[in-house]
Order: sequence, then C-alpha cells, then structure tokens
Amino acid sequence: MKALVYHGPSNAKWEEKQQPKLLKPSDAIVRIVKTTICGTDLHILKGDVPAVTDGRTLGHEGIGIIEEVGASVQQFKKGDKVIISCITSCGSCSYCKKSLYAHCKDGGWILGHKIDGTQAEYVRIPHADNSLYHLPEGLDEESALMLSDILPTGFEIGVLNGQVQPGQTVAIVGAGPIGMAALLTAQFYAPGRIIMVDTDESRLETAKRFGATDIINPAKQDVKSVIDQLTDGVGVDVAIECVGVEPTFAICQQIIAPGGHIANVGVHGKSVELHLEDLWIKNITLTTGLVNTSSTPMLLKSCCAKTIEPNKLVTHHFALSDIEEAYKVFGHAAQEKAMKVVLSNS
Amino acid sequence: MKALVYHGPSNAKWEEKQQPKLLKPSDAIVRIVKTTICGTDLHILKGDVPAVTDGRTLGHEGIGIIEEVGASVQQFKKGDKVIISCITSCGSCSYCKKSLYAHCKDGGWILGHKIDGTQAEYVRIPHADNSLYHLPEGLDEESALMLSDILPTGFEIGVLNGQVQPGQTVAIVGAGPIGMAALLTAQFYAPGRIIMVDTDESRLETAKRFGATDIINPAKQDVKSVIDQLTDGVGVDVAIECVGVEPTFAICQQIIAPGGHIANVGVHGKSVELHLEDLWIKNITLTTGLVNTSSTPMLLKSCCAKTIEPNKLVTHHFALSDIEEAYKVFGHAAQEKAMKVVLSNS
Repeated sequence: MKALVYHGPSNAKWEEKQQPKLLKPSDAIVRIVKTTICGTDLHILKGDVPAVTDGRTLGHEGIGIIEEVGASVQQFKKGDKVIISCITSCGSCSYCKKSLYAHCKDGGWILGHKIDGTQAEYVRIPHADNSLYHLPEGLDEESALMLSDILPTGFEIGVLNGQVQPGQTVAIVGAGPIGMAALLTAQFYAPGRIIMVDTDESRLETAKRFGATDIINPAKQDVKSVIDQLTDGVGVDVAIECVGVEPTFAICQQIIAPGGHIANVGVHGKSVELHLEDLWIKNITLTTGLVNTSSTPMLLKSCCAKTIEPNKLVTHHFALSDIEEAYKVFGHAAQEKAMKVVLSNS
Repeated sequence: MKALVYHGPSNAKWEEKQQPKLLKPSDAIVRIVKTTICGTDLHILKGDVPAVTDGRTLGHEGIGIIEEVGASVQQFKKGDKVIISCITSCGSCSYCKKSLYAHCKDGGWILGHKIDGTQAEYVRIPHADNSLYHLPEGLDEESALMLSDILPTGFEIGVLNGQVQPGQTVAIVGAGPIGMAALLTAQFYAPGRIIMVDTDESRLETAKRFGATDIINPAKQDVKSVIDQLTDGVGVDVAIECVGVEPTFAICQQIIAPGGHIANVGVHGKSVELHLEDLWIKNITLTTGLVNTSSTPMLLKSCCAKTIEPNKLVTHHFALSDIEEAYKVFGHAAQEKAMKVVLSNS
C-alpha cells in the first residue's frame, strides 16, 4: 500500500509501505476512505513532537471501511463503514473508567504518533470496539470525518470545559479549524454573544457566517478595550484559547470576568506567564486537555439530526495520493483560505 | 472607642477613634467580643495592599453583640450574638445572584480594607442581613470566630474548588492556618490520603494530629519523588496551594495527576510560570478565588454538630487591647508556633 511516512523534520513522503496486519485480537484493519490533516501534523513535521520517529505513518483522523477484525472484536465486521476516533482507548483502565480516554494506559493519542496513522490506504486500529464508531447511513462522509478529532476537541476542551451557558458572553481566541469547531458547538448552549478574535480578516468573516456575533482583529483593535465596551467593563464569561501561544493566552487572562472560565484548547510548546497577582482574587477556572472523545456519540447524533453541519469546515479536496501537495496548502492555511482539507482514497 | 488604626507600612496603633454610626438603613453596629488576625492583615501592614489607606481600622474577622441596627435590617436586633462574615454582600447584585458574594458590587472584601474593620471595640457592618450570622447557643466562640474567614476560605477555595472526593489523594501545600482549614474540611469527603507539604516540622506534626496521612518537608525531601512513590507515579488528584508564592505553585504543577485539580488559595503578589507545555495535554483544572462565604451556613451546622472543631486552630490568646503585641507574635507565626490568635474584648 501507499502511506505518508515521516522521515524527520520537513520530510514526509507518500511512499510504498507494508500493509498493516492484525497484531492483537482486539485490533481492526480499516481501509481509509477519507482522511484529513490536523495542525498537530504540522507540529510533527516541524520536528516539535520527538515521540514521532523516522518511518512513522502520520495522521489520526479518518473514515473508512473495515477490512478485517481480530477475534475479540464484537461491534464491527468486515465491510462496516466507520469513523476512526483520534483517541484509542481500552475502555477498562483506571483512566478509561473515568472517561479520561485521552490518558488510556494502552492508548490515548497514539495514531500517527506512537503507532502508524491514518494518512495511508490502510490503518490498524487497536481496541477497535472502543475506538471506532459506526458511520450512520444518511450522514455525509465529510461531516463524519470532522468527528475524528476537530469537532469533539472544540466541543469538549473548549465548550464543555468552558461551561458555556445560555445568555453568556463567550470569546474564542483563534479562528482556525479548532476555533471554528468551538464556535459551532458553543451554539448548542445558546450563548448571548460569541466574540471571535483573530488577526485574519477572511477567517473572521467566515466566523461571522458560522454564527459569531462579534469579531475583533487584535492587529487593528485593542481586544480588552473592545470587550470592555461590549460587556460594560465586566469581561467575558468564557474565554476559549485555540492557538497555543503566550499572546493569545494573555488575551484570555485580560478579558475574563470574575467567576469566568478560561478553556485552553491550544497546544503549547512553551510555558506562559500566569497573572495570579490579578487572577487569585477573581474566582476563575482554567482548564486544559487533550480530547477524550467521550462526546463523540452525542456529536454523532447532532450531526445526523443536522443541528450541526461540520462539513462546512471543509474548504479543499485532494486525492489521497496528492497528500504532499495538500500539506503545502494546509501549511499556509490562512493565506490559502484553507480550513479543513479532505483527502479521498479513490 | 479604641481601634487598631493603620498609618502606613509597619505602622498600626491601638488608639482612640470615633465609634462607628449607622450610615444606611441596612447597616448594623456590632460590639466586638472576639477578633483575630489574618495573614492578609500582615500583607496590609507591609504596605502590599495600597487600597488600605492611612486611618483605616484593620481586621475582617470577628464575633460580637449587635449594638444597633438600621431601619431596614430584618434578621437581627440589639443584643443578638453574631458571626461577622469577612465578605459583605448586598444579596441582590448580579454577582450575588450567582452566589459570587466575593465580587458583590456593593461589598465583597471591604472590612479592614475599604471601610473600617473588626480589630476595634465596635464595627459597622453594611448589608447586615446578608453579612452576619446568628451565633447558635452551644457553639463555642472560638469555633464561631473561625467561620468569619479561615474555615470557609479553606473549604470553598481549597476543598470545594478542588472537588475532593472519597478515596482520592489530596496534597495541601502550606500548613499555615488556611492549609489547616483545608485539611480539616477535606476530611468531610473522606479522601484516601491527605499529604501535607511544609518546611516547618512543628506545623507538619500538627497536620498529622489534625488528620494528614503523610507529611513532606521540601527542605529535606524532593516532593515530586516522594509523591511519585506514594502514588505509583500517577500524581495527586487534588493539589491545594495555600501559600501564594511561585515555588509552592510550581510544586502543585509538578505533582498533579492527569485529570487532576489544582486549587489555588494563596494570595499572590507576582505572576507565576504556568507550564502549559506539560499541562495542556493533562486535562487539569486550575481554580482561583476569594471566598464567597456561601458555605458558611453549612459549616455552621458542621461546627454545631461537632463534625468539625475549628477551635483547635487557636494557639494564642490576648486581650484586644494587647493587639499590637499579638501582631508581633503572629508576624513570626511559625517560630512562635502560632496558628490562630484570639483577641478578646473584655
């Protein structure tokens, strides 16, 4: 088969690789139908994730058709159409018992990280019963693909951790794919105002189309001043950080109201300054996390009911064999006006 | 009357001052029976709290007898014995409606801060109906005095924010009065292990007497190594920071388990380094806050039922007129083996 194989920083090649085989009775082999590229894949390609070593197939998102299942797999059989969760989970360790699947002792985020991933014609999925979902008839493939990672991440780590409630004022800092996923899923809870903050005008316009009530461009406006005007000087109830750098995390600290929630979704490479000299007295809650995908069944129902249509996040389409070109486009996403790129295995 | 009056850094005098009068119909005047000194009072005396200006009577804790009430006060009358909450709250602003009394728009922490406080023979309490509690017969005065601030602070900002649950491993960093209040109230929820961390051996011994299952002295042991041994390398479920400086906050970040809660109780004067490069993926929750005293009625019942006996935190007794001497002792609390000092107005 063919796969996108990592060979060190800035070096990933679409090349011939041995097709994966069942290694344990709980494994499944899935033939990829569609996959996509995550911001995390770009971090890996920069060499930021040392656990990813030479020879690893990249990717942790995808939908596909079951090719083969191990003897202990109960929920899936050859021919089933499935959504691959970015989180692999055994379902029985102490973390899984708490629905902290991200920290599964025999799983977590391993696809395209510690084991070969989904940017390939075939992938091996451990703990298939807990790590795959049936793709319901009637749900379009591109919406389903967004359920692998981006939609549950924006929802669980942004919206649920931020405890968005009706009438509240929510700021989302960073209008990339994850920020958009938070924007779409925040609307489940009918907040009064959703303020999108980003330096890219095109993304801000997209955010307005997707339901943001207000937009702020920090390159042109002082975010705190605008938010003070919008909130009578109180600040926002929820600030969702979707970038992962110090300046955007600093904005969240500046704009949060007493009693507010800062939900960090961004992947940070460095420590940040936490202004406890101001925040100690403000009764704030700050959360972090890797997605557990515990909300995937709920989001799947929402997609089927069309209360949310995440396929609107897709901007570009490529053949899977053109994945190297797709990485170039996604690597300059703002400039290319790219949000999510879909790669199809014909 | 006499009062302890602030005249700038390191300068507070027990001196003659005009007795307070009712200013609004919702005020009460309380004759102080007992008061105490908080770590925050020491910060003020160092000049760390610029909102406290020359001429301010210090103190935000106390029990007393109602001397006079304004026309709109419904719940209290002359002669009633009361606990004075450190938080004054109107009960009707947007923050009070959310039980965020700490941020009451016409109150919050104002006693001994923005208005004259309780280290005096008499004090004026605004919004008396919401800011005083009847002291039940049968409850000793010293336990009642601990309900002004220290017990609800350790409980709400440490234990409740930290979401302590049965069987969990809890670390409390800082064995001062607030750490001890967290230690006592954490036991409501039957954690499996409570690890007290402090550099003072005497305080660690006290912590063991008060229910700590393990003690760690960071001057002698590497905290993370010991906790890794105690928890099979997993870390603690809850870390309660009760000091307010960077090294103790750093310990909490080092020892927290995936999915854990860091509850910051300490009053910080400076920003701290937040290791989001490690924590972004750990699904942790970090909380801060000034006490709302929303738990005071619950704690009052617990004290009456003797499921908790906070009078054991009291180590020293003085006449109110000897308050300058009491500050000297409390200012060297560890050395003097002092926890809470009680000042009685005879």
